[in-house]
Amino acid sequence: MRFWGWGEDGHDAPLPEAAEDLLERELDVPPGPRREPVALGDIDLPESRLDAEDLASVAESFSVRTDREARVLHAAGKAYPDLVRMRSGDLASAPDAVLSTTSSEGVKDALAWCSSRGVACVPFGGGTSVVGGVEPLRGSFSSVVSLDLRGLNRLVGVDERSLTVEAESGLLLPELEQQLGARGLTLGHFPQSYEYATIGGCVAARSACQASTGYGRIDELVLGLKMASPSGDVDLAAMPASAAGPDLRELVVGSEGAFGVITSSLLRVRPRPQETRYEGFAFGSFGEGAEALRILEQAGAAPDVARLSDEDETRMSFAMAGGGAKARAAGLYLRARGVAGGCLAICGWEGDPESVARRRGRTIALLKANGGVALGQAPGRAWVKGRYHGPYLRDELLARGVFVETLETATQWSGLFTLYNAVGRALRDALGQCVVMCHISHLYPSGASLYFTFLARARDGEELDQWRAAKHAASEAILASGGTITHHHAVGKDHAEYLPREAGERGIAALRAVKAELDPAGIMNPGKVLQL
Amino acid sequence: MRFWGWGEDGHDAPLPEAAEDLLERELDVPPGPRREPVALGDIDLPESRLDAEDLASVAESFSVRTDREARVLHAAGKAYPDLVRMRSGDLASAPDAVLSTTSSEGVKDALAWCSSRGVACVPFGGGTSVVGGVEPLRGSFSSVVSLDLRGLNRLVGVDERSLTVEAESGLLLPELEQQLGARGLTLGHFPQSYEYATIGGCVAARSACQASTGYGRIDELVLGLKMASPSGDVDLAAMPASAAGPDLRELVVGSEGAFGVITSSLLRVRPRPQETRYEGFAFGSFGEGAEALRILEQAGAAPDVARLSDEDETRMSFAMAGGGAKARAAGLYLRARGVAGGCLAICGWEGDPESVARRRGRTIALLKANGGVALGQAPGRAWVKGRYHGPYLRDELLARGVFVETLETATQWSGLFTLYNAVGRALRDALGQCVVMCHISHLYPSGASLYFTFLARARDGEELDQWRAAKHAASEAILASGGTITHHHAVGKDHAEYLPREAGERGIAALRAVKAELDPAGIMNPGKVLQL
Repeated sequence: MRFWGWGEDGHDAPLPEAAEDLLERELDVPPGPRREPVALGDIDLPESRLDAEDLASVAESFSVRTDREARVLHAAGKAYPDLVRMRSGDLASAPDAVLSTTSSEGVKDALAWCSSRGVACVPFGGGTSVVGGVEPLRGSFSSVVSLDLRGLNRLVGVDERSLTVEAESGLLLPELEQQLGARGLTLGHFPQSYEYATIGGCVAARSACQASTGYGRIDELVLGLKMASPSGDVDLAAMPASAAGPDLRELVVGSEGAFGVITSSLLRVRPRPQETRYEGFAFGSFGEGAEALRILEQAGAAPDVARLSDEDETRMSFAMAGGGAKARAAGLYLRARGVAGGCLAICGWEGDPESVARRRGRTIALLKANGGVALGQAPGRAWVKGRYHGPYLRDELLARGVFVETLETATQWSGLFTLYNAVGRALRDALGQCVVMCHISHLYPSGASLYFTFLARARDGEELDQWRAAKHAASEAILASGGTITHHHAVGKDHAEYLPREAGERGIAALRAVKAELDPAGIMNPGKVLQL
Repeated sequence: MRFWGWGEDGHDAPLPEAAEDLLERELDVPPGPRREPVALGDIDLPESRLDAEDLASVAESFSVRTDREARVLHAAGKAYPDLVRMRSGDLASAPDAVLSTTSSEGVKDALAWCSSRGVACVPFGGGTSVVGGVEPLRGSFSSVVSLDLRGLNRLVGVDERSLTVEAESGLLLPELEQQLGARGLTLGHFPQSYEYATIGGCVAARSACQASTGYGRIDELVLGLKMASPSGDVDLAAMPASAAGPDLRELVVGSEGAFGVITSSLLRVRPRPQETRYEGFAFGSFGEGAEALRILEQAGAAPDVARLSDEDETRMSFAMAGGGAKARAAGLYLRARGVAGGCLAICGWEGDPESVARRRGRTIALLKANGGVALGQAPGRAWVKGRYHGPYLRDELLARGVFVETLETATQWSGLFTLYNAVGRALRDALGQCVVMCHISHLYPSGASLYFTFLARARDGEELDQWRAAKHAASEAILASGGTITHHHAVGKDHAEYLPREAGERGIAALRAVKAELDPAGIMNPGKVLQL
């Protein structure tokens, strides 16, 4: 990936003309010149603090790089503040070295090496964290390394009878899906970061994906795992279920490298769907649509993908799409049905044709009974086509001087709109002129997740302050409204200061006790999940 | 409940004549005289080690009893070794006092009192543990109290929109269902101990119930909880899902009082089913039936209750039922269909009529396509009628000089029959002449649980040695075959020595670190989950 943004060169996402107009009209962003990121060679990279001779004598099971490219590429994840810093060439946080390995023995040797020298160690998978999860913080140590796990990428085994697979952590999601596909299987885990995320990163970050309403979150798919910690191995065999005490799997899933390095996971898989069908539905309002989705989910009739955009997100996505003849036709159709200015929902079903037909029938009957107007497959296909497009678009917006960020939370159905309104208000107060959009991204029997996207004109040179103000305002609103500080982006560095409010002082103390036991020197990913 | 067995006086379960014959024929148990349990007044109860004056001055928020009845009734759970000891009047393990309270403040005050005096504290709900979970072990302390939570029994709140309720721990499951029923709701948690179990006990023990294939295990129903620990409160708000670090809920669920006292839980509920339908199916063999259930579950077509008895359990249950005209007719019918000597499955569906009809249709089509022969509703009704009957029958068997015990495990589908055969062999080797029966009790996409029931002639005066030998043999076989040491009975005292093999040395170290943080003096339920 490009160090300053998403994807590789040649995968750019130029803004449509309609979007240009919209940015000027709604955010007062002039159509001025692009701000290009600094070139790799021009970056002023701090010297590595590690001793070159010492690095030359490491174990054979892992290797070390201290070159510019390796250090820059491991200096940050893909959060907005990361991109701002990387684009401007601020590499103060670059790791002193990048270790890499192709084996779990190599991971253990690397941790032993870090332990013996007092070097902080940041596990690095796909590097797609949007919450500062891979930022090479030193903690109380003078040096820090990034431990690249991409070489740890074997599909260890497939149990077709139990429908489980064991995968090493560095396996990219597309690589995993390709190997599973050859056997007619799928994990069904498709986060927006799909193209660059590793399976170990998903497990470490407790991720949910776009289809998790149907396939389940990663924490529901992990049945067993292996973690190398500085004090030894945690090896939890796969169990379909157990009453054998507290569930240690759930202590490792979501630990974000703060306890150790997850080296492999044993995961539930499913038969690869023979059919996928995505359709659009319109509702008169976000409230009406949310109520329909609640009824759907609580009746056990939810599709595999269920998303509902609020009025602003619906309006913006139509506008960004360019407002062509088709969109105008859709608009006329909706107005005729009394849902002008309404909200767009996308529903997707995956499986064998019988299953898709049966479940789709139930979904649609309930949606229609609760105010939904069917828009056919075109909006569904458009969503599928653009499902991984967001991060590319973000790069383009940054180049245009736009502040753009996302965040997500979840809460009970009964408090969903209190939370929705509070976060929207907080962001508008913090940002001034801005666009705040939201969609319901995942359904649960007891509640749903809300995914916010917000844009404003970037405050030149003060982007990080602007970001902090917005992030803080939104996080306070979430906590005050009883939501979780993150539904699928993890804690990382950015949410660590808010986690104590959610987990409580004793909850944090319990996590710190586990960390002290597994990572006594505190070398593992300092400042992530748990504050420094 | 009666201190020496299950249920209240008047709820006895006399053995049918056919069962008497069977015990003599298969286990060499003569039809001799009944062995009656000791009377309460005849028990030689050790003196309380607590100072009466000290006890008289406790906080107002909880009360203390040291009378014979209270101490005897809190001296043990309902495991086979418990019953053997209680029936014979061996009360060496009786608690020094029984504390009770009606408020979470009372729990906190009681814990503070225990902490200040160095008194071990054993949380006690329904007292139905079958793994020694409520045995008043002293650990390193000279005295121990049982903390009775039955008074902590309010339904704190119902959120009908989110379909969640908050219930205090001491609420009995039937009380909870009654209050939920008045609002058209159900938790759907019906373990065999249903009549006497508390909701807090289920959460603490990570229980599964007979209908958990459909309604979900308790760990899937708990969304939030409150625990009072000696070092302070752990208060986890209900979240539908979260990526905010390791899931602390899963650290509390299954902690069995070893970290603190769970005072209330926030649970997912469902609309009360308008219809319940239970039916029997026959399969030619346990292997054939298991394969049909695997296909069913992996196709998402499992019923809410799914059980499959092996050949021995099927044969025994027909024999115990008396072999009347109906059973003979069923036998003839099955032989005509080529499934003589086969296996009985019970399937149950609950919900609104449309849901039951739709799901039942899918289940039955798949069962039939995979060798199942429909037996109609009679076997299903018989199972429903007797679903809580087992513990009563056990008392009767003990009175007849029969050793009878159950245990349960779970593993991946691919290893299910290796485990099944290994445990059967281990039990037969350990017990000599015996009957070992098994059923699949819960289905998961990746595997299933196996529930074993085994009987032998009790070795007079050596019942506890006989039990230990059988328990040890089965546990070793389970661990060697990759199963979990318990699927729904919890760890308690009886499985604590085996847990390190499942959780690993670092896993146990992590649990001990949490305990040391939340319960620094180690007063909470010593010797449960974690060995002394």
